[in-house]
This record gives sequence, C-alpha cells and structure tokens, in this order.
Amino acid sequence: MSSPTIKDVARLAGVSISTVSRVMNDSKPVSPEARRKVLDAIKKLDFKPNELARSLVMRRSNLIGVIVKDIAISYMTEMVRGIEEVGRMYNYDILLSSSYGDIELEKKIINFMFTKQVEGIVLISEDAKPEVVYMLQNQTIPYIQLDKFYNFNETYSVTINYKEAAKEMTEFLIGKGHEKILFVKEYKNAIIGQEKLKGYKEVMDAHNYFSREITVDGVTDKEGYKYGEEIWKIIEHEGITAAFFSEDGLAIGFLNYCYDNNKKVPDDISVAGFGDIKISSLYRPRLTTVREPYYDYGAVAVRKIIKKIKDNVEIDSATILPSSIIERETVKDIN
Amino acid sequence: MSSPTIKDVARLAGVSISTVSRVMNDSKPVSPEARRKVLDAIKKLDFKPNELARSLVMRRSNLIGVIVKDIAISYMTEMVRGIEEVGRMYNYDILLSSSYGDIELEKKIINFMFTKQVEGIVLISEDAKPEVVYMLQNQTIPYIQLDKFYNFNETYSVTINYKEAAKEMTEFLIGKGHEKILFVKEYKNAIIGQEKLKGYKEVMDAHNYFSREITVDGVTDKEGYKYGEEIWKIIEHEGITAAFFSEDGLAIGFLNYCYDNNKKVPDDISVAGFGDIKISSLYRPRLTTVREPYYDYGAVAVRKIIKKIKDNVEIDSATILPSSIIERETVKDIN
Repeated sequence: MSSPTIKDVARLAGVSISTVSRVMNDSKPVSPEARRKVLDAIKKLDFKPNELARSLVMRRSNLIGVIVKDIAISYMTEMVRGIEEVGRMYNYDILLSSSYGDIELEKKIINFMFTKQVEGIVLISEDAKPEVVYMLQNQTIPYIQLDKFYNFNETYSVTINYKEAAKEMTEFLIGKGHEKILFVKEYKNAIIGQEKLKGYKEVMDAHNYFSREITVDGVTDKEGYKYGEEIWKIIEHEGITAAFFSEDGLAIGFLNYCYDNNKKVPDDISVAGFGDIKISSLYRPRLTTVREPYYDYGAVAVRKIIKKIKDNVEIDSATILPSSIIERETVKDIN
Repeated sequence: MSSPTIKDVARLAGVSISTVSRVMNDSKPVSPEARRKVLDAIKKLDFKPNELARSLVMRRSNLIGVIVKDIAISYMTEMVRGIEEVGRMYNYDILLSSSYGDIELEKKIINFMFTKQVEGIVLISEDAKPEVVYMLQNQTIPYIQLDKFYNFNETYSVTINYKEAAKEMTEFLIGKGHEKILFVKEYKNAIIGQEKLKGYKEVMDAHNYFSREITVDGVTDKEGYKYGEEIWKIIEHEGITAAFFSEDGLAIGFLNYCYDNNKKVPDDISVAGFGDIKISSLYRPRLTTVREPYYDYGAVAVRKIIKKIKDNVEIDSATILPSSIIERETVKDIN
C-alpha cells in the first residue's frame, strides 16, 4: 500500500487539488464545508503534507540544536531564551534536549540532532566531558559550548573574564572596609572556580590581606546550606567580616542557613555572590553579586552560529562579554 | 548543479560507500585517517546525510511540538521537563518555541510545527486565545493545552481540581484558628482564579465567616509587591489574620513588601499561597502553599498524546491530578 498523495485527498474530499493545497497552506480563503471535508479526508487517509520532502529539496532545516544540561536550572533557561529569541529573528527554531549531564545521553542527542539536520549546535553544560567536545569538533556543522564552570581553551564559547570579575568584587568588598574576607569556592576541579579564586587572591595579595578559602562540593543552595555550619565556624574563629561565594546558589543556601540559625545578614556577616541568578534579586535580603549576562551568552552564541551558516564568518574561539557588580543589601559598609 | 550524493563523498575521500556510511552512522569502527578523509569530503561537498528523506519514507518525525508562553517562567519549565523526560522514554524529542503570549506568533508557530511534521502538540499558555484553541481543534494531530489560569471546558487538558484545593487550604487556615481571612485573587477574568475564589467562599460561608477578597492585576511577585500597601490597609482595617493568595508569585511579592516595610510574617500576618513554584521553598520564611504537580502535568500530557499516536487511545477532555497542602513557615497557629 503506497502513501496517500494530495490527489487521493482531493478525490476523497470531492474537491480540487488546489483547494486541498489552500487548506494545507492556509494561503487563500476556503469555505468552511470544503475545509471540513479536506480535514476529514486528511484524517481518514492519514495523509502527511510533504514539507519534509520540500525541506529536503531546499536542503535547509532552519533548526538549531540546543543541548542543555537541565532546563530547570534558571540561568540555563535564560541562555536558551537568548538563543531562541535571536534565532527566531533569523527564522531559526530550536530543537531542545536535556542531557542531565549523562554523557551517553549527550552523545545520543548529538547524533539525533545530526539526523534532524540541525544547522548548528549549542551545548549548554556544567562539566562537559572532553569526549563530547571532541565529538562536536569532529563534525562539520558549527557549534558553541556554553559552560559556567568548566571551559576548554580550544572550544568555541561565549563567556566573561571570570578572574577580572572576581577581582572587581574583591576590590568592592575591600572598598566597603572588609579586610578579612573568606572565599567560598564551588567544586574542587572547576576551572572557572579556579579563575575566580585567582582573581580574589591577587587582589588580597596586592592589599597585603590574608587569603582564606574553603571549597564546597557543588554549586547550588543545597551545598551552601550544608556547609553553612563549617563556614560559620571559620567566620567566628578568624573574625571574617565578609564571605564571597563563587556562585549565587551557594550564597543563597548560606543565607538560608543564616536565617534558620538566627544570624543576621549583613549585620553579623556580609555576603557576596557571583552570577546574579533569578532568585538573587527576589530573595530578602537582596544578594549583592556579579552579574553574568546569561541571555547574551545565548544570543551571541546563536548569532555567531548563524553568521557562520549564512555568511561563512568563522567563529572565534571565545567571545568575552562584560560583567558588572550589582550592589544590593547583603554587604555592609563597615568603614 | 545537482546535490552531492554519498557516492560523490566516497569518490572524493577515496574510500568505499560503506566506509562513508559507517562514519555517518557511527555503526562500525573506521580508521582515524579514513574518518578524517570522509569528514573532509563531506565538508568540501557540503553533503547533508539524507535522514530527512529516510524520515519521509518512514512517515515519522518522532517530534512533539511544545509551545510555551515563556521558558523563563519556572513552573512552565517544570512542565516542559515532564514532557521531555517522558517523551524521551518513548523516543520522542521536543521542538520547543516560546510565544510570549503573542497570538500572531502563536499561530505562526503552530503552522511551523505542522511543516516540521510534529506528531503531537502541547500548548503551555497563561491565557490562550480561543482563536488559537480553535486552530488546534481544527487539525488532525493530537494536542493538549496546559493553562494555569484560563481553562476551556471543551479542550484537552491535564489539571487539578482548583476549587477543591482552595477549599482545603481555607479549611487548613481555619484549622489554625484564623477566622478573618483575606483572599487575594489573580487577574480579573481568570477562570481558574474564579474557581479558587469559589472554593474559599464556600468554606467561609459554611463556617459563617465573612468573606473578603481583593483582585490584583497579575500573577507575579511584581503585582504582589505593588498591591502590598493596599492589602496591608485592608489587613489593618479589618483585623485580618491570614492572607490567602491565589498564586505563589503574588504571595512572594507580598512577603517582599512585608520584609521591606518591617512587617513580620507570620507574627504580624499569616500568608498562604497556591502553586508551590520553585522559589516558595527556597525563600525565607518558607511559604505554606498548595502544591500543583507541574512536572506531572507535562508528563501525563505527553503520555496521553503518545498513547493516541501509537495505540489510537482517545484523549479525555481533562485529566484531574491530585494536589496537596504543603505546610511550611508562613502560617501561624493562633488557636
């Protein structure tokens, strides 16, 4: 049994082929009865319009594949939004898949995206495996990797200068009179966390202040809360007046720990974050932090991919965007 | 100039067609040199594997189209996650587009999804227009509409019993000793907000307590904050001890208003929400609220669509899921 054609639909509906075409393409007015007949015939015959064939001839899918670690992570959502809005300006839509950081799934998704003829790929990860990056490097369509914690020099990316941003925040805290500042660092091996730590240390060294750091095993409010007691012991023991968290999630978790244990922020301790995730401005007290341009990461990434597709403009290995300090309520001026 | 074929790639790379096929499908091992030659040839010829043609023959796109008002709204993200995870179990991937509530864009997206041969559509809206719903009704692929505020009886949906849930929360507040309860309702015309209001009123009537309501123009923390002063005036004037917000976003905005104006929750006023959005458990004090199963809305919706596609099981007009009261820190027991 061969596939039904537009002719079969027209015959069953008792209308002309051009009427079927009008209904399918919504191009010109059709009477409600004719429309109903055509839709019934399409349903009965299980007829599928041949856009796939058309797109095969045109050789264009107009799809950008986006692999996101987890769509429920709010800063990743902002990146996806940037990709989607700018993509749409250029008539590209996105094919979205979440990998949950599972490497096998990630590889499967990339292959799936190839079969869907995506014209470019954005990988939004938190700790992309070299194996997956290698896979992207060894194929022919343009791609960009966005990763807030790990970063490979050799990949295409859009980012900020993390070290400089951490330096600015450390200077900001010192400007508010803080000399005993604790740096709370995400994960052990996160490359970007190391960059932030370097920035903090350089500024502390330049001022001849003693650096003090603690590394926590994660980046979310859960770990910030879990390490709250340990962090608080250091604060008390060493007379720390400000804690600079390498991630907003950690800072929010610590603020929760403080609330639940009757420590007042910023009276008992000043707190600064990094990232400006959504909750940071909604929480009370509002978190003072470094703003990362998540939306722009996505917007610039997709723009570069589309420029590569359309005008064959090569993608630079990394584009550096500006960041800024957002002063809110969690850092006290003790001058 | 005709499109390059797999033969052209094999010729240019100096390998057999089956080697090209192996590289493309990652099916069997290929030597690194051969792999490199094939990839170079694919790049030079701009050869695109013919999966589109294959999928045309198979007549299956294995795509579910998801139209979401705004991917940055956290409860919508949870729904998308449910759709995606369950879809993947059945080998369906999602084609995602945000409409930002723009009706023309929504119609354009639906047409675009048809051309991409999606096998089902989930529309995640906040105030879907009848015109768009009509458009979904007048086509042949299965669809489900998820809407937290508006709901049309005649559409396919997955939901909770909003009136019953509001009744439960009102009983819960009364159980904590509250008799003077203010109901803060989202939007003017939101059908579901009306349902919640009905539930609240029924319970208040049954107890012979006086109902008191205020309608705010929105559902987010911005409106909850904006109406804070007005709400506070009612609280003071009428001796209200508990405010029941028809949406968590509004309740969070009001909690922020209280924090910024030195009102203590729950000592000065008890606050209850509806929805259990992400921030409600992260905020301090933690919000007591009604939990809506967002993930399950998405998971059940896509499961029903896939059952319709695969086994032709008809979609019921609405599936009702259970909700529950989540007691946290914002409601005081004044018994």
